[in-house]
Amino acid sequence: MPELRKDPIIDRWVIIAKERAKRPITSTVPPPKKAVGFCPLCPGNEEKTAVPVYTDWSPQSNFTETTWRLRVVQNKFPALVNEGVLQPQSEGFYEWMDGVGAHEVIVETPDHYATWADFDDTQAACVLDGYRQRILALNRDLRFRYILVFKNHGADAGASLDHPHSQIIALPIVPKRVLEEMRGADAYFRKHGNCIFCEIIQQEMQNRCRLVMENSDFLAIEPFAARFPYETWILPKHHEAHFETLDRERLQRLAVLFRDVLERIKTRLNDPPYNFMLHTSPIHPPEELLGYHWHLEITPKLTRVAGFEWGTGFFINPMPPELAAEILRKDDSVATQQSLHSVNA
Amino acid sequence: MPELRKDPIIDRWVIIAKERAKRPITSTVPPPKKAVGFCPLCPGNEEKTAVPVYTDWSPQSNFTETTWRLRVVQNKFPALVNEGVLQPQSEGFYEWMDGVGAHEVIVETPDHYATWADFDDTQAACVLDGYRQRILALNRDLRFRYILVFKNHGADAGASLDHPHSQIIALPIVPKRVLEEMRGADAYFRKHGNCIFCEIIQQEMQNRCRLVMENSDFLAIEPFAARFPYETWILPKHHEAHFETLDRERLQRLAVLFRDVLERIKTRLNDPPYNFMLHTSPIHPPEELLGYHWHLEITPKLTRVAGFEWGTGFFINPMPPELAAEILRKDDSVATQQSLHSVNA
Repeated sequence: MPELRKDPIIDRWVIIAKERAKRPITSTVPPPKKAVGFCPLCPGNEEKTAVPVYTDWSPQSNFTETTWRLRVVQNKFPALVNEGVLQPQSEGFYEWMDGVGAHEVIVETPDHYATWADFDDTQAACVLDGYRQRILALNRDLRFRYILVFKNHGADAGASLDHPHSQIIALPIVPKRVLEEMRGADAYFRKHGNCIFCEIIQQEMQNRCRLVMENSDFLAIEPFAARFPYETWILPKHHEAHFETLDRERLQRLAVLFRDVLERIKTRLNDPPYNFMLHTSPIHPPEELLGYHWHLEITPKLTRVAGFEWGTGFFINPMPPELAAEILRKDDSVATQQSLHSVNA
Repeated sequence: MPELRKDPIIDRWVIIAKERAKRPITSTVPPPKKAVGFCPLCPGNEEKTAVPVYTDWSPQSNFTETTWRLRVVQNKFPALVNEGVLQPQSEGFYEWMDGVGAHEVIVETPDHYATWADFDDTQAACVLDGYRQRILALNRDLRFRYILVFKNHGADAGASLDHPHSQIIALPIVPKRVLEEMRGADAYFRKHGNCIFCEIIQQEMQNRCRLVMENSDFLAIEPFAARFPYETWILPKHHEAHFETLDRERLQRLAVLFRDVLERIKTRLNDPPYNFMLHTSPIHPPEELLGYHWHLEITPKLTRVAGFEWGTGFFINPMPPELAAEILRKDDSVATQQSLHSVNA
């Protein structure tokens, strides 16, 4: 029997339909081929990108243009541009404004073929620190209301370049999805006097059936109403609204756990395409909304979003999050076998 | 300069970023290959599917098991099942219930290789009438709150079978997306005393820059804040909340226009994958929500939904809807040339 589950934060239901994993697929998309050729993000090609807004070097480097370990540059084909003033316009019920914002590319490593799973903990921390530095810098621009960090890994998850990179978009509007989460958290806070995310963390640490990993400061779980197979959230155990307030020590602990989760997703699910998104508080959170708690959402792309999802805003997930957690939790090669079997079944 | 546009009905912004259409894609997915082999939806294989809940024959047929022109059967791998009672359960902040509902497959034609573009107007009307008949039948089940009709065309839009088919899902909950639209329409109605969809129709018929086609009863437009390139909405000109109240004459006029729009999308955009979704009123609309207006949304899949969209609930669309409308409106082969150039640019 399939199960309908409600997301505890926002009014979104998910159908956990294990039986649907059995259906034969007679119309398939072959995996993308790796493109070869010139890469504008590789060391030596720095002149092909804009002047970096942030660069990180290892202490052993000579701090030259080509010996960086992380670079952040403006996107050459930006969705929003960092110029002009915000001027909301309208005609009757239609509203619009110039696309003022920022769109930056974080080149995560000089190594064209590395993935998060191949990073050492230092490189992982270096990338997270890059996110933090850029959020802190962009927070100062009074035109911006929200800074989104995200990554598209693999063509099927929307990546248009193979070189490992993530993206930052500064928006002049607080996104719908963030507001929905904040409103859900606020409603819970007003009713129960506590943060819904903190409650979820307590519950999942006690119950453990959806827990993937934890350390002293963070935990990784499969959410109760997971939209996608192996959807994984990473949350700080301590209540905290803004990611960018992390100190260096906690940031390193996050890097170790985050990298490990992404390595498990790679090795156990045959390097699937995935997205991850940092959900942090708006720069100036609406004063009336209480109780937000930053977190990372990782969403592997093993199913396709189709008419049902577009028509309802709900999701069909053939993989119960409890089983996904079990598979990601295990430390041995049995897990890999089991996960591949489940996905291909 | 990119432009931020607000959807007039729900609080969702879209970035119209024409410049991004120019970016090089070095990581590409080849088009899916047609799978060949046994098809459970083809005539002669009726025993491979469940007993039909609805069948339509042409008057010239002998009304045999294999001479149908449309069949509706229960999905063999249903997301929701039509048995059991609704029993909401909860444990603390987690809520769930058994996946009670219905999941049916509408086999749109006996012809394995036909698409909507190849249908004659009679076949198109026959499919729409199938939707109407099934909605009317499922409306009577007191456990259901919403009936969604949708189609996934092409593997990249989520189709797992090549034989032309659409789907119906009956849900025990009114979907988030439908409630958002209803709440947006209700807020507008209370403020301005009119239906926002009726206002949009008036505006688009006067302005005409986003109008694709119209006849006496329906129009096809590219919405002002289109999420996707060539996203097209079809609306009844006359205010109407429920699709299933259409009479046969208007249903035939809808079929002619809908088929024509899908043919234009096929021929001008090189048969892209697409979804369409019927947005109609819930069976028992919440009494406090005024002003809903049913419509069809067609969303070709020419861009990928990625981290930005998942993180924000907003969309980046490289194709201005005014240009998309111009391309779909034109009747000659110039349009085809122009559209392919724009998409590949």
